[in-house]
Amino acid sequence: MKDKFYQYIQDLQDTITSKLEEIDGKAKFQEDIWKRPEGGGGRTRVIENGNVFEKGGVNISGVHGALPKAMQSYFKVGDVDFFACGLSLVLHPENPMVPTVHANWRYFEMYDKQGNIVDSWFGGGQDLTPYYLFEEDAKHFHQICKTSCDKHNPSFYATYKKKCDEYFYNAHRGEARGIGGLFFDYCKASDEMSMENWYDFVTEVGNSFLEAYVPIVERRKNLQYSDEQRDWQEIRRGRYVEFNLVHDKGTLFGLRTNGRIESILMSLPPNVQWRYDHHPKPESEEEKLVKVLKKPVEWQ
Amino acid sequence: MKDKFYQYIQDLQDTITSKLEEIDGKAKFQEDIWKRPEGGGGRTRVIENGNVFEKGGVNISGVHGALPKAMQSYFKVGDVDFFACGLSLVLHPENPMVPTVHANWRYFEMYDKQGNIVDSWFGGGQDLTPYYLFEEDAKHFHQICKTSCDKHNPSFYATYKKKCDEYFYNAHRGEARGIGGLFFDYCKASDEMSMENWYDFVTEVGNSFLEAYVPIVERRKNLQYSDEQRDWQEIRRGRYVEFNLVHDKGTLFGLRTNGRIESILMSLPPNVQWRYDHHPKPESEEEKLVKVLKKPVEWQ
Repeated sequence: MKDKFYQYIQDLQDTITSKLEEIDGKAKFQEDIWKRPEGGGGRTRVIENGNVFEKGGVNISGVHGALPKAMQSYFKVGDVDFFACGLSLVLHPENPMVPTVHANWRYFEMYDKQGNIVDSWFGGGQDLTPYYLFEEDAKHFHQICKTSCDKHNPSFYATYKKKCDEYFYNAHRGEARGIGGLFFDYCKASDEMSMENWYDFVTEVGNSFLEAYVPIVERRKNLQYSDEQRDWQEIRRGRYVEFNLVHDKGTLFGLRTNGRIESILMSLPPNVQWRYDHHPKPESEEEKLVKVLKKPVEWQ
Repeated sequence: MKDKFYQYIQDLQDTITSKLEEIDGKAKFQEDIWKRPEGGGGRTRVIENGNVFEKGGVNISGVHGALPKAMQSYFKVGDVDFFACGLSLVLHPENPMVPTVHANWRYFEMYDKQGNIVDSWFGGGQDLTPYYLFEEDAKHFHQICKTSCDKHNPSFYATYKKKCDEYFYNAHRGEARGIGGLFFDYCKASDEMSMENWYDFVTEVGNSFLEAYVPIVERRKNLQYSDEQRDWQEIRRGRYVEFNLVHDKGTLFGLRTNGRIESILMSLPPNVQWRYDHHPKPESEEEKLVKVLKKPVEWQ
């Protein structure tokens, strides 16, 4: 399974970066191959200063070895070996009318001292962070998420949509990071779902990413915007930073377990503002977005 | 003691904000008086878009009531009452030749159910975060810190300078946030130092703040700088954000204990950049700074 899934994310990285370069029309992904001293490594691909994408990364990694101490206590296990691989992407478009997107699909195995798999699971999801709310875009993104889920289990969309709203939540602000999507974790073999079934589900979602995001980019990338709208985007990007550095388990884990810092923090936006006690004007488009972030919407 | 110290920080806030407005010559501090639902409140003063200060805050607060759950487990105590007050300041100048400064002086009391003080301590410090290193400035700042310390105990400067280097450290980057200063905490009554002695020490440091920082601002505020130098400042400000959101105990505590978010996060810089895998040019002024941040210097 681990070889099959690693092959899958390698291919998916190629598919996604090719398509994004085509859309951008200017910038190309720069590739960094890196090795983890304790075992494994990754292939980081970063795009900067494009026509469409101001900054973004589509990264894969496959790491293994002794489970780091911090993860042992997190998973409440002893001194075991592990394998983890995944694809992580974040795209920060320049135009505030185009939403930021994040996606991640990952697979984890844990071994006993004889090398037998004692636990394994899939995780991942995809979620959208607009700066201006186009309901058509939110509905489209969630429709693709739902269609992918429905092929595998009629309850998945509702469950993983809710988990996404709960996870990507800036508790200290009382608002969601974005308008959600899917989030799932610890997807393990059960009577209903074998690991092969989970593989089919996770790759279904992975394969749906471009269909979920690209039409939105195409619709919005040439819209005009003002300096004030750009300021709003940069202020909202501050909330993105706050979530990733204060709440996101993946980021904090990476920072505490000697992960590759530049690959982890490529998720941070390129230009960001913090203003004291900033509030959108009443009845404005900016306030409309914030209202939706304060109270999740059922888009499907 | 709590009334005496709260009066002290009120007066100090006035002294510091008056002097900073005089230096800035354009922007004035905007004041927000706020109340904490569970007891106490504060006086936040924020300056934005000045001639010298792009963003900054000089805030006091005095809060009391039942010790929040998160702080009970941190302090390893049960359900007790507390009082805490302090002054916190952060100044982000516009000119990259002028360093960012942070300072904090605080006092904490804990009570048993009869209202008797069962524990009390002072804490605080001041530290400098330059974007370009002027050794003259670093030496001056540390000289003032040392002079204040030496009046109270010959070992204080070395001890608290080291604690500052250790505390304001971005472990995930392997570099200090800035060039340090003083950091002290849990300053409690002992055979050598009564609480009155600690009060004298902490207020000595507080009184030295303007003498430590203002001459540096005056020397650098009119220096010319390029767009590239401004970019470097904004990239380094990213590291400031990383420290405050990932490592700073005060910030994280505030976010987890329902503190006033805007007063806590006023410490974040106004305009910030993150670029992928950015490194200063060899032998540049930017690299000279990073080398010092990688290995703390004895400035005195």
